[in-house]
Amino acid sequence: MTRWPLPEPMARALELAREAAAAGEVPIGAVVVKDGVVVGEAHNAPRELTDPTAHAEVLALRRAAQKLGSERLEGCDLWVTLEPCAMCAGAIVHARIARVYYGAPDPKGGAVEHGARVFEHPQCLHRPEVYPGIGEEPAAAQLREFFAARR
Amino acid sequence: MTRWPLPEPMARALELAREAAAAGEVPIGAVVVKDGVVVGEAHNAPRELTDPTAHAEVLALRRAAQKLGSERLEGCDLWVTLEPCAMCAGAIVHARIARVYYGAPDPKGGAVEHGARVFEHPQCLHRPEVYPGIGEEPAAAQLREFFAARR
Repeated sequence: MTRWPLPEPMARALELAREAAAAGEVPIGAVVVKDGVVVGEAHNAPRELTDPTAHAEVLALRRAAQKLGSERLEGCDLWVTLEPCAMCAGAIVHARIARVYYGAPDPKGGAVEHGARVFEHPQCLHRPEVYPGIGEEPAAAQLREFFAARR
Repeated sequence: MTRWPLPEPMARALELAREAAAAGEVPIGAVVVKDGVVVGEAHNAPRELTDPTAHAEVLALRRAAQKLGSERLEGCDLWVTLEPCAMCAGAIVHARIARVYYGAPDPKGGAVEHGARVFEHPQCLHRPEVYPGIGEEPAAAQLREFFAARR
């Protein structure tokens, strides 16, 4: 339980993650927000879409780019329930996302505060501001329940 | 000039890179091969597709997954003209690509032998075999000419 209301975009990302679980996908959700308005959202869907790149973040970024008519999402924020992997962190760089808010850390697959630490290299051509831990408990609980049910 | 004939998939990737340049995109091409047959190919197209994730590798992997009906591309090789970035290296991991052959190194944007070195972390859940330098000279020349023409 969190002790204060979750920011709306993270609440929505958690809802999308629940939809992913219901569809048999690992429960991860992502929302792209510009000026307080959702411009792209998605849940994790590699199985549904037969697409190894169909993580929630990549899909949400692609949808936002379509909606805004630009491959650069300047001034946009990404909210995602789990620490992004290397692929998604790289996509966040290419999209020029201003701020990344994520829920649970991912010591195994994450590449922001773990592993490849994509934003921390001198070559990284765009560094978003990063705010971890918002919605961590419900996001981690969803993942635990999902994997417990498959064991 | 290379001193021996290029393997066919790299020659095709270079041809795709030329198509990218003709379309005003950074000249990078990628080909996915399974059992000697091309199952996905693409050139870099973020502007054309208004998609920050539309690198040659991501598009070629997505097309191969569609063609083979599986988000895991086991036993497939990826041929690409430039060292993959963090996003593409991550996608290669998710797709379980067996072997990556790339042309030119990319000290600025690459994440295989530079920067994030995505395949080198203990957390990396799948490590492809990596063969750099095949087609390096023509790949680098295409990029040099492209950027020289825009200056």
